[in-house]
Amino acid sequence: MNPTDGPLCTIDFEPVGKRIAVAPTTTLLDAARAAGVGVASICGGEGQCGRCRVVVMTGQTSAPTAADRLNLSERELADGQRLACQTRVLGDVKVYVPRASQVIEQRLQIEGAARRVQVDPSVHAHAIETSGPSLDDPRSDLERVTDALAPVPGMRWTAEPAVVRPLPALARRTGWRLTAYARGEEIVGFAAPGRKPIGFACDVGTTKVAGYLVDLETGEELGAAGVMNPQIGYGEDVISRLVRATRDAAGAADLARVIREALNGLLGDLAAEAGVARDQVVEACVVGNTAMTHLLLDLPVDQLALAPFVAAASAALDIKARDLGIEAAPGAYLHVLPCVRGFVGADHVAMILASDLDRKPHAAIGVDIGTNTEIGLARPDRGTLTSASCASGPAFEGAHISHGMRAATGAIEIVRIGATGVSVKTVGDAPPVGLCGSGIVDAIAEMHRTGVIDDRGRMKREIEGVRVADQEPEFVIVPAARSGTGRDIVVTQHDVNEIQLAKGAVAAGIETLVEATETRREDIKEVIIAGAFGSYLNLDSALAIGLLPRLPNARYLQVGNAAGVGAKIALLSRAERERARNIARHIGYVELTTSPGFNRRFALSMLFPKRPVYEDA
Amino acid sequence: MNPTDGPLCTIDFEPVGKRIAVAPTTTLLDAARAAGVGVASICGGEGQCGRCRVVVMTGQTSAPTAADRLNLSERELADGQRLACQTRVLGDVKVYVPRASQVIEQRLQIEGAARRVQVDPSVHAHAIETSGPSLDDPRSDLERVTDALAPVPGMRWTAEPAVVRPLPALARRTGWRLTAYARGEEIVGFAAPGRKPIGFACDVGTTKVAGYLVDLETGEELGAAGVMNPQIGYGEDVISRLVRATRDAAGAADLARVIREALNGLLGDLAAEAGVARDQVVEACVVGNTAMTHLLLDLPVDQLALAPFVAAASAALDIKARDLGIEAAPGAYLHVLPCVRGFVGADHVAMILASDLDRKPHAAIGVDIGTNTEIGLARPDRGTLTSASCASGPAFEGAHISHGMRAATGAIEIVRIGATGVSVKTVGDAPPVGLCGSGIVDAIAEMHRTGVIDDRGRMKREIEGVRVADQEPEFVIVPAARSGTGRDIVVTQHDVNEIQLAKGAVAAGIETLVEATETRREDIKEVIIAGAFGSYLNLDSALAIGLLPRLPNARYLQVGNAAGVGAKIALLSRAERERARNIARHIGYVELTTSPGFNRRFALSMLFPKRPVYEDA
Repeated sequence: MNPTDGPLCTIDFEPVGKRIAVAPTTTLLDAARAAGVGVASICGGEGQCGRCRVVVMTGQTSAPTAADRLNLSERELADGQRLACQTRVLGDVKVYVPRASQVIEQRLQIEGAARRVQVDPSVHAHAIETSGPSLDDPRSDLERVTDALAPVPGMRWTAEPAVVRPLPALARRTGWRLTAYARGEEIVGFAAPGRKPIGFACDVGTTKVAGYLVDLETGEELGAAGVMNPQIGYGEDVISRLVRATRDAAGAADLARVIREALNGLLGDLAAEAGVARDQVVEACVVGNTAMTHLLLDLPVDQLALAPFVAAASAALDIKARDLGIEAAPGAYLHVLPCVRGFVGADHVAMILASDLDRKPHAAIGVDIGTNTEIGLARPDRGTLTSASCASGPAFEGAHISHGMRAATGAIEIVRIGATGVSVKTVGDAPPVGLCGSGIVDAIAEMHRTGVIDDRGRMKREIEGVRVADQEPEFVIVPAARSGTGRDIVVTQHDVNEIQLAKGAVAAGIETLVEATETRREDIKEVIIAGAFGSYLNLDSALAIGLLPRLPNARYLQVGNAAGVGAKIALLSRAERERARNIARHIGYVELTTSPGFNRRFALSMLFPKRPVYEDA
Repeated sequence: MNPTDGPLCTIDFEPVGKRIAVAPTTTLLDAARAAGVGVASICGGEGQCGRCRVVVMTGQTSAPTAADRLNLSERELADGQRLACQTRVLGDVKVYVPRASQVIEQRLQIEGAARRVQVDPSVHAHAIETSGPSLDDPRSDLERVTDALAPVPGMRWTAEPAVVRPLPALARRTGWRLTAYARGEEIVGFAAPGRKPIGFACDVGTTKVAGYLVDLETGEELGAAGVMNPQIGYGEDVISRLVRATRDAAGAADLARVIREALNGLLGDLAAEAGVARDQVVEACVVGNTAMTHLLLDLPVDQLALAPFVAAASAALDIKARDLGIEAAPGAYLHVLPCVRGFVGADHVAMILASDLDRKPHAAIGVDIGTNTEIGLARPDRGTLTSASCASGPAFEGAHISHGMRAATGAIEIVRIGATGVSVKTVGDAPPVGLCGSGIVDAIAEMHRTGVIDDRGRMKREIEGVRVADQEPEFVIVPAARSGTGRDIVVTQHDVNEIQLAKGAVAAGIETLVEATETRREDIKEVIIAGAFGSYLNLDSALAIGLLPRLPNARYLQVGNAAGVGAKIALLSRAERERARNIARHIGYVELTTSPGFNRRFALSMLFPKRPVYEDA
């Protein structure tokens, strides 16, 4: 059947109350995206992750697919439950999107550790005051204003046509009193007199995007905000999106478009709130992992998705903000910080910049735990900085965990098992809905401490609270009666194994890097934990499960979104931008997957430590 | 009546055989443009020029307007003749476009005088040969190729995302053997190995566009071609177009779009013919009068259309060719040469460059006669170069002349009046259709020589061949029996007056400039006549009617399209581009309209010289 045949089908999405008309055979997931209804999807619509579960309440749809049957029981199918990505509409339908399948706004970590930066941005404002043209002085508008700029010997001012375009009307409106924004010899914009130059820094994460508006004269932050990365609708993890982008040019274009629109919207919101005009925004600085910056710039990712996983470009790139559809001063640049490798991105460079990892007086580690975990190790005694990257999977972000979720309202972030049973604390103190990363780590540490799981991670069926469902043991964290979903919130044996894989990868990654750089663990005087997950992480639990190396708590520093702070630093200072370039060019890289002993260490690291022992104090 | 009401009207254009459906009340001129039928219009659809005369053969149209009645007799109206710009369709109609109203392709002057240039373009090709990535060498693609570029101390290669985009696929296809095109430190494109860098030079005239494809390594011209400037459909003269552009943003956008498309098409044709790939075209260089370059770049022209007629920008401007929709290497620049003033454009600077006017050992004049005439006067004894500009009107281009036309097939270019009557020569030796510029000058010189007109330009009714039509005397050049239109081709008293105005403006302009620079006429050892009209001009006739100053023929040099040659020179040489900048910045300018004595001189120059007398030899 041709998708465009027949009359359109009307779909009502409940409980959000959105309606859309689509061609017959459109999938419910595509329809939801088109209607702006956030339906969760990790695999990007491939029928693999089972997260896009919805209930078809009324109306005709296609028959269940093999993927439906793999993810849903006969009873669930009979109840109308279906995977949105597998289900095609054949008539008007009413669809219920359960809370667990809804993509919801997340609590974002956008506060980084403060770090002093000498403000010397790439763009400066110059005040201009001149007189208008006459028959005796028929100089062109641009010549007139550049002649009025403070004369710099040898300086030859240039301006693109896009920058000249608004000048004639503006100059006549302001009586030839203007602000010119210059980036070296290039004028990137004109504005009314007295308008300060403003910058926009942005950390494009796989899940979230953090933006900052900064006064480029004082360095003062005028606003900060976060939004979800809308590419989530095309796959929650990096690989799904790379696959999507490599499949066809339209996929890549879609991924580029939605993130560009998100950046533009984020900037617009920040500017409106701060009372800043768009044409005052004269420079943007963006960081992100290599895949995110490639997708933003619509650079090819084919070679990034396959071994040896190389970037199309690793140097810092400048592009006109307008070329990305980002409304700013007409000539404003968007500067993307350099990356190191395919899986060590500009966000890692920015983290190093923000945490001063390259300037530590002692051996130090910086680690940003996420779906992909990047680790940097500084050895000032040798003048080296070495990085490694490991695929830790999305478990710490709540994915691939039965009742996992991101750190949104209702997410369990703290778990304690005491004499009276399990107690939890949720984000926003709302009724518990699921477990976010820090909650899972907490739960598993507590389960191990209290003997619910043994050192190999096996759940003990004889322990109270452990039960067997679908032939698999599971441990109840919150019973249905107290949960916000009306269902038990549990940690399954599978979940424990997922966390073992994830923490094993991170621990083995750190250990391998430490060994590859011939560093003694006790010489590591500082471990910087960056990123949202890392900031909410309970350090004791992380050490207890062996996620992080056994070092005294005092050596750990949880710094929040260091990548975002690094973006701000590079926005504010040309010297720091130059420093980022040097970091990216001179950083060493250890390929873990081919490092001797990594696999053995990975296997060992999946075990739980007998008990937390600090090797020194 | 709302233009979109009712069913569409179908219009058939004959004899071209094109059909289009338009909303009721659309004018025939707009419909013709939309259908791609070239209907002549000088005034841009204002009902003034009367050139868009068509015949409504069948179907219902709006009633004749005042403009129709002013331009057409009652009998012509009764025959169905109408102005296309005034006539709105009210139903299906069949329209006949007479030959005289058709815009036809013109013989273009694209051969300039040869001038030696040291080839040193802004873009150079570099051969790259390197190896692909591996786990041991996971450098990014861009890093890999820039590392392989010949190392230049301190050189920091950059490339825009648009340039990086095709690199991964190309490099893998060619086995990491590539050509990189670099402009300073910026890589503007990559291509297969051995691909030469090619440049595109372009002279955007008000009427015609001349393009040249040039090998940037040898300077060899690979092809040259000309097309009509499609903006003609929006008004034949500069002012009509400026009015159109200032009326609304859509008008300016339309004017920009059509000329950009023309440039892109011209480049495409040249490249296809020369067997050059688009991604080998790494730099473009464009000249034109100030209005043309502003319209191409979509720069504001409000301030250009009103006194004191200032440009938005007079400096040379660089813009990415892709930003104009011109397909070339992804990072290729289009360089627009600097202009001098609102009415002394980049084409004048290019003419000076091509003719070496700024390096003459003696006093010399360069003049490009057109709708607007630019004059440059070099005084090497004083180290000055001074320009002036006068509005000479479009008469020399065949406009505002009863049977005027451009130098297309059938245009009379030579006229002689002998004992046996008038003899003519036409372009392509086709049956005569009208008079082009050189033909009109010839005709009027001959009419004056033989006493058909007196020194004041009055036509003598008693002379054979002179007759009176509509109370105005006219002189028959070609009788209907021998013409290609079936109508008499005549020169009217009005035509003589138009030429008097035009030649008076040019002559007075030259004289005023000569006087303003305190130059003695006899010291002028060289007069360079540039441009298409100037190259076909019969010098004796031009001197006979007093269009050009009375100097020996040997001092005159007709150099053809010097502006186009100047564009090629600036394309080939950075030094010459720098020289153009200096010319534009240091050239003096004489405002004729406010110069003392200009108006008196103008009035006197409208007379015809008693007879050609050479003041010296």
